[in-house]
Amino acid sequence: MGLRTAEEFLNGLRDGREVYYRGERVPVVTEHPELGVAARHAAIDFRLAEDSKARDLAVHCEGNEKFSAFYKIPRDAKDLMSRSKLIELGTSEGATLVLLVKEIGTDALLALRRVLARNKESQGLSRLEAFYQNCRKHDLALAVAQTDVKGDRSKRPSEQPDPDMYVRVVEKRPDGIVVSGAKVHTSCTPYVDEVIVLPSRSMGAGDEAWSMAFAVPTGTKGLRLYCSDFLHGTDDDFTRPISTKHKMIETLTVFDNVFVPWERVFFEGRPDLASATALTFVEFHRFTAVSYKLPLLDALVGAGIAIAKANGIDRAGHVREKLTWLGGYAETVRGLTELAALRCEMEEGIAFPHVFTTNMAKWTFARDFHRALETVQDLAGGLLATGPAGADWNSLELRPVLEKYLRGAWPADKRMAVLNLIGELTTRLYGGYQAVLAIHAEGSIEAEKMAMFRAYDPSRAIGLAMRLAGLEKR
Amino acid sequence: MGLRTAEEFLNGLRDGREVYYRGERVPVVTEHPELGVAARHAAIDFRLAEDSKARDLAVHCEGNEKFSAFYKIPRDAKDLMSRSKLIELGTSEGATLVLLVKEIGTDALLALRRVLARNKESQGLSRLEAFYQNCRKHDLALAVAQTDVKGDRSKRPSEQPDPDMYVRVVEKRPDGIVVSGAKVHTSCTPYVDEVIVLPSRSMGAGDEAWSMAFAVPTGTKGLRLYCSDFLHGTDDDFTRPISTKHKMIETLTVFDNVFVPWERVFFEGRPDLASATALTFVEFHRFTAVSYKLPLLDALVGAGIAIAKANGIDRAGHVREKLTWLGGYAETVRGLTELAALRCEMEEGIAFPHVFTTNMAKWTFARDFHRALETVQDLAGGLLATGPAGADWNSLELRPVLEKYLRGAWPADKRMAVLNLIGELTTRLYGGYQAVLAIHAEGSIEAEKMAMFRAYDPSRAIGLAMRLAGLEKR
Amino acid sequence: MGLRTAEEFLNGLRDGREVYYRGERVPVVTEHPELGVAARHAAIDFRLAEDSKARDLAVHCEGNEKFSAFYKIPRDAKDLMSRSKLIELGTSEGATLVLLVKEIGTDALLALRRVLARNKESQGLSRLEAFYQNCRKHDLALAVAQTDVKGDRSKRPSEQPDPDMYVRVVEKRPDGIVVSGAKVHTSCTPYVDEVIVLPSRSMGAGDEAWSMAFAVPTGTKGLRLYCSDFLHGTDDDFTRPISTKHKMIETLTVFDNVFVPWERVFFEGRPDLASATALTFVEFHRFTAVSYKLPLLDALVGAGIAIAKANGIDRAGHVREKLTWLGGYAETVRGLTELAALRCEMEEGIAFPHVFTTNMAKWTFARDFHRALETVQDLAGGLLATGPAGADWNSLELRPVLEKYLRGAWPADKRMAVLNLIGELTTRLYGGYQAVLAIHAEGSIEAEKMAMFRAYDPSRAIGLAMRLAGLEKR
Amino acid sequence: MGLRTAEEFLNGLRDGREVYYRGERVPVVTEHPELGVAARHAAIDFRLAEDSKARDLAVHCEGNEKFSAFYKIPRDAKDLMSRSKLIELGTSEGATLVLLVKEIGTDALLALRRVLARNKESQGLSRLEAFYQNCRKHDLALAVAQTDVKGDRSKRPSEQPDPDMYVRVVEKRPDGIVVSGAKVHTSCTPYVDEVIVLPSRSMGAGDEAWSMAFAVPTGTKGLRLYCSDFLHGTDDDFTRPISTKHKMIETLTVFDNVFVPWERVFFEGRPDLASATALTFVEFHRFTAVSYKLPLLDALVGAGIAIAKANGIDRAGHVREKLTWLGGYAETVRGLTELAALRCEMEEGIAFPHVFTTNMAKWTFARDFHRALETVQDLAGGLLATGPAGADWNSLELRPVLEKYLRGAWPADKRMAVLNLIGELTTRLYGGYQAVLAIHAEGSIEAEKMAMFRAYDPSRAIGLAMRLAGLEKR
Repeated sequence: MGLRTAEEFLNGLRDGREVYYRGERVPVVTEHPELGVAARHAAIDFRLAEDSKARDLAVHCEGNEKFSAFYKIPRDAKDLMSRSKLIELGTSEGATLVLLVKEIGTDALLALRRVLARNKESQGLSRLEAFYQNCRKHDLALAVAQTDVKGDRSKRPSEQPDPDMYVRVVEKRPDGIVVSGAKVHTSCTPYVDEVIVLPSRSMGAGDEAWSMAFAVPTGTKGLRLYCSDFLHGTDDDFTRPISTKHKMIETLTVFDNVFVPWERVFFEGRPDLASATALTFVEFHRFTAVSYKLPLLDALVGAGIAIAKANGIDRAGHVREKLTWLGGYAETVRGLTELAALRCEMEEGIAFPHVFTTNMAKWTFARDFHRALETVQDLAGGLLATGPAGADWNSLELRPVLEKYLRGAWPADKRMAVLNLIGELTTRLYGGYQAVLAIHAEGSIEAEKMAMFRAYDPSRAIGLAMRLAGLEKR
Repeated sequence: MGLRTAEEFLNGLRDGREVYYRGERVPVVTEHPELGVAARHAAIDFRLAEDSKARDLAVHCEGNEKFSAFYKIPRDAKDLMSRSKLIELGTSEGATLVLLVKEIGTDALLALRRVLARNKESQGLSRLEAFYQNCRKHDLALAVAQTDVKGDRSKRPSEQPDPDMYVRVVEKRPDGIVVSGAKVHTSCTPYVDEVIVLPSRSMGAGDEAWSMAFAVPTGTKGLRLYCSDFLHGTDDDFTRPISTKHKMIETLTVFDNVFVPWERVFFEGRPDLASATALTFVEFHRFTAVSYKLPLLDALVGAGIAIAKANGIDRAGHVREKLTWLGGYAETVRGLTELAALRCEMEEGIAFPHVFTTNMAKWTFARDFHRALETVQDLAGGLLATGPAGADWNSLELRPVLEKYLRGAWPADKRMAVLNLIGELTTRLYGGYQAVLAIHAEGSIEAEKMAMFRAYDPSRAIGLAMRLAGLEKR
Repeated sequence: MGLRTAEEFLNGLRDGREVYYRGERVPVVTEHPELGVAARHAAIDFRLAEDSKARDLAVHCEGNEKFSAFYKIPRDAKDLMSRSKLIELGTSEGATLVLLVKEIGTDALLALRRVLARNKESQGLSRLEAFYQNCRKHDLALAVAQTDVKGDRSKRPSEQPDPDMYVRVVEKRPDGIVVSGAKVHTSCTPYVDEVIVLPSRSMGAGDEAWSMAFAVPTGTKGLRLYCSDFLHGTDDDFTRPISTKHKMIETLTVFDNVFVPWERVFFEGRPDLASATALTFVEFHRFTAVSYKLPLLDALVGAGIAIAKANGIDRAGHVREKLTWLGGYAETVRGLTELAALRCEMEEGIAFPHVFTTNMAKWTFARDFHRALETVQDLAGGLLATGPAGADWNSLELRPVLEKYLRGAWPADKRMAVLNLIGELTTRLYGGYQAVLAIHAEGSIEAEKMAMFRAYDPSRAIGLAMRLAGLEKR
Repeated sequence: MGLRTAEEFLNGLRDGREVYYRGERVPVVTEHPELGVAARHAAIDFRLAEDSKARDLAVHCEGNEKFSAFYKIPRDAKDLMSRSKLIELGTSEGATLVLLVKEIGTDALLALRRVLARNKESQGLSRLEAFYQNCRKHDLALAVAQTDVKGDRSKRPSEQPDPDMYVRVVEKRPDGIVVSGAKVHTSCTPYVDEVIVLPSRSMGAGDEAWSMAFAVPTGTKGLRLYCSDFLHGTDDDFTRPISTKHKMIETLTVFDNVFVPWERVFFEGRPDLASATALTFVEFHRFTAVSYKLPLLDALVGAGIAIAKANGIDRAGHVREKLTWLGGYAETVRGLTELAALRCEMEEGIAFPHVFTTNMAKWTFARDFHRALETVQDLAGGLLATGPAGADWNSLELRPVLEKYLRGAWPADKRMAVLNLIGELTTRLYGGYQAVLAIHAEGSIEAEKMAMFRAYDPSRAIGLAMRLAGLEKR
């Protein structure tokens, strides 16, 4: 108990869950040509526990219990650094695509634990503890459905013409609650064991019906998952070396009168806890985000250096300038991520990453990501958009022509491999996917700026300014 | 004569040309599911001449001869503005994708005319004039093969281990020349009538074999076109409203001992003319480029405004800031393009756009294009990467769910239409295609900077500085 | 009549006006060591009319009347271009410092003329016409007091604890009005003949007392001018080659129960006209602004090129990159300024520069000006802040040491002259003065963005986006 | 012994040193109206040791020896953090102006120690150790003369027409060497005890004469200090609250046949050691730089927040956006500085800050500093350049007028104090001084980029890219 194999994880997904892909119901997720790829990508998380090199990071021992290190509650900076390293390792094994089937779920559990403890919510806490122990013991995979569909963004939940624009309690029963509404951008839902539902914004008086947190098994009746096909396609791994083998699936996650028994409801009818949870969750989740962005940034830097050499331009002044910027950008994000862990703070015995620093890391990542894409495209050249197909490369007739004419300072096979990697990362669907994630996932740039504004402690700066202005004594 | 219908143009493409797509020879371009789309996109150029609203721009009358306005030799600023407007109109009709089957070819003819006249090359000029008259009379579609495959970018043509890295003369015969080598990024080659070949860089002593310009019919023996499949796919026009109906195809353009009769050789063995042609061509071609970028920029601005309204965020301060930047960016490019025409200069009776201003327009476009993509993605939201497929939308079962939950301040059908347009423009393959073009097509950003550095007239600025420093009298 | 000499202008300033400098009343402005420099700088405007090379731009003939071209009412694009060129010429003669004693005043007169005519205010118009004819006939110098001191920026005029935070009518009498309050940032007030007072913001119901426009002679009783000494100092023209000889003075302009006869009141008690005037004034005044910024930009570009040569770094790649950016920045502002004139619009027979384009030019100027300063400082080197004083240079003992050790690729005298010019433009008080003006003068960057947002015509862009999204037919 | 009082330090400067200011020889530095201010500013360093709150950072105890903590050789990350905090504290006490009379000198001693030890230069090491012990024991103040005047930057030392463009050995004698030439930008030279001379660039074969390091007392015969008067002026502390009381002086530092006895020569005739010293020195000195920039950044952030409140604009969206950026910028520099210490490396038992991270911190600081200035100027408003003089404020007649009209949301005295602080920091001479330092001091931006390019370890990034491209196994 406590650790499952990848196969056990995959077998656990056969539970009649209601999943739709391209308009059709998917009978068994793992057997679907697209969703199966995504599930097996997620399964890398379980393989890490079996890998002798990764085990130290991936597995935690407490007494004689062994369990996934994601379920370890961080107690200090070192624990947070280990968590960050594990996320980075998993994403690196996932070829720059985060695994996320435990990362985000444990972010949610940690946040709920802090909020409930902070508010002395003993009943909620004991339900959460039971849920947590079960997840840990059975090594469960978790999704978090947070972002509501939101309807008109200029209106609050209770002001929307259709009350279902935010997931809400439609009925309270002696044995539990019934919820309806929909969440969007829910990652990995089709291939996890449990879906944790959190509020996505601050709530106020009048928003009680929309103010709850709970968890349900993915196969729960009335829970419907409508998959996005954004990264569709498993052929041509010549031009798509990553996304033919690594996928993540997001769903529109519809709750159609879903029943949730009380022991799975962590709180409800509490705008105060809802607001606190929304904020506290991102304190963990943005740290997860900056941790999992690091391999993507490394891949861009590494591919940029490689293609500069492959093209024979690595000694040009402007190329060095671009590579220096690229490295400086990536390493600033890495440095601030590390610092967010080192500067951690404590609440209720739980270490959490420094809020301002975490948001600063994410903001640094997000506001220059498109410039990084541009820079690598610039180094790579126009073949990104005009290069040959895998079928061309695989043709016995065409290959010699392509090998002759597509060489640079490196032979064509090596140069094309790097170019196609860059194509995926910057120009094709996977690049677009990561670009949108950079702006919107784990909170938009605007959200990060607001968080920075709120979290900034101005006392040292204002104190100095007032003293220099002669308005305050030291 | 002088004007063909779209159908005449398309029928003219059945000539046994040697075209490959995804590893296979294409028997008839217009019947190919992908290339046919591209050819019909290009045919819009011919339809404009038939369209009562477009005719004034698209058709030129000289005496009682009517011909495509692209073949009109510009004599003043007004002619250049008309040319720019025609390019913009065609691209707008092409849904932001340039048509290019006459734009680039006439850029090349104008450049060759200036260079040959400047150098009193009467033989070359008379060959060019004959070729030009034939193109104009038969309303031919033209591609320009300029960029060589280049091999190791740190080496000149004559230094490359394989001499074919730049197209070259391998034999001179009494009746013509034989050429070998390959060009890359050649746009529209599979569906034009003639391919004009120009040198791609400055040449010097020792580079004679690589220093020539000529034209051949696309069906010429030994000319092989290997298509890129980058924009492949004609299904799902829900998520790809542009690129399922509008495509441009680039080729690796291989010359395998192609014979070119002397009357089609405009010059050869002349590094001086080669260098001059490479530079003069881009003086026209970058003006074409900035003209055809305008609808793309308008589409980004318009889609940005529309999605802000559709999401209900158009009154937020940061949204107004972003829309203002976006409009300012697009209108700066438009304004500088207009100015490049208004400030035109004359050579040999030909008006050409102001070199510094044209490059400044292109540089302004190119260095902020990725920021524009980022801005529109930011306004649109995460659904760009997590939204439903066309098959979902078309499913009778799913549609009501999607209509309920994907509405914003606008109903779901309108909101999703704008979102999917933005998806194409910024996040999916078409967006990646345009992003790479922004950096590399018609000269890279670095090339534009070099052109600006060379074209800048420092006399006013230095004169003022020296006078202010007391080092020079007025 | 119609044209005064510089001396006539200067003599006209002896009228007992109430001017304070560094805490003391200034008896005669032209005899003051600092204000006299500023007055003589302004007098360059009058000298231009006497200069054979400038006369064509500076003097306008109507019938047999000759008058300052600033008083010419622009009727088409050409007139606006001439106005722009005259402003540029005057500023160039003023060593990058605008003269402004007619520029801003005629901006105000043109704006009032449009607003009053638009609203059929015949009485106001005839008063304005009389005032205008008088100014033109006597070749008067004008200041415009627009920006109120404003108090708490989060409050409207009528909400301020002290009603004098915006200039207001405190009494209406049969023969005129009595006004109190203060304006700030009023340029050139101490050495002009007339002060025109305009509202500085949109006004609404309740703001009647603050809603008027009028003009008074500078020597009017109760009008008090408190000069800023920001550019103080006339010694050491070695390190301050510009500002020892060229100054502009801004005042805190206090109205202490100033009486204004009705024939000098263009309107009062009219929030609607006040709002319209505030907006219409900047339509002209921002065009003036971008016109007068051009010599400053040229000086930065020219000095940048010169110091790169003087230091021997002009062949370095990063230096060329910086010079190219600098030239591109300056020329974009120049190009958009030209375009604002070429795209002019007409109201009541008056040509005014294209509003969106003018604001775009100003926005382009303002948002990169500090980067331009940084770039030139970067090229110049640390001597900007560690170089010798004029007294060092003038010392017979020290000069040989400085000449030996401060040479670069140019001899020390030439290199130091360029360095000191750059010091003035970027690092010393004059540089700081221009930097603050770049952000705040003639409307802040935020004001320009708002103006762009309002003036942008979205129809073409939205029309295209909606058509591409399939939501609108062509 | 080991710690001097401020007075002892100041008295020690009376040694006949040859100092020039504004063309005249200065008899006693501490009695000079300008240089005395600078010397007393430097003396803050000595006061810190007497201050009970600062003593822990400022004083180091080893056995029963007490000495300035600057002379503590760092052995781990904690020592480097303490050094950084001490530099920050001193600069904060110096009102954002670094003290630098021990910071830079100990940077030099640490660098020499590493280079000599690395190269087993036992003689050099023992001379250095003796010099170090003397400095530490007598609590000496040190300047470092590194940057040569350099002449034509495109030529190496030995290629310059005048060999004195880099300081060089003109004669070797049995008892020592004789040196000539000049250094520039030498900070604090007039008021330190010793001047350490280091090479400023990499040297090669043929550059032996320019390849040495040594130290001389400031009063040494033939050593002449020509002061820059850039921050001249001690009056009007209303508008110049910092620079009237805090100054740093840079000199042109001329060596006119200066004799240096062998025991003060750390090496000579060794291009290899010269190159290594130039590089190793900046590894420490850039860490000093980013440490001392922190109070300046805090002052900008604090003043930005204060003026937003004082003007009543702190709730505007664009103001929050600007303050967030400002805080994010400052804190990124701070975070990377901290990280540079935490990631320290060891050589010869000496801890030195992580090279890449240090340069990244400095690069981050330098490339956005002008944007920070712009941002604070933007928040402050035009009064920065048009506000009243101290003499106005101090006038009994004018004060009430100014108090009435210059108030914002805060009363005028508080608002003007903040505005004038901002004026100093961003717009007046002190702002220009700091702006030039940001670009050029402790290595230019280009130098930092080169250092980053060299120090970046690409193995992780390239390894990942190659693995993803299928070109390398894990």
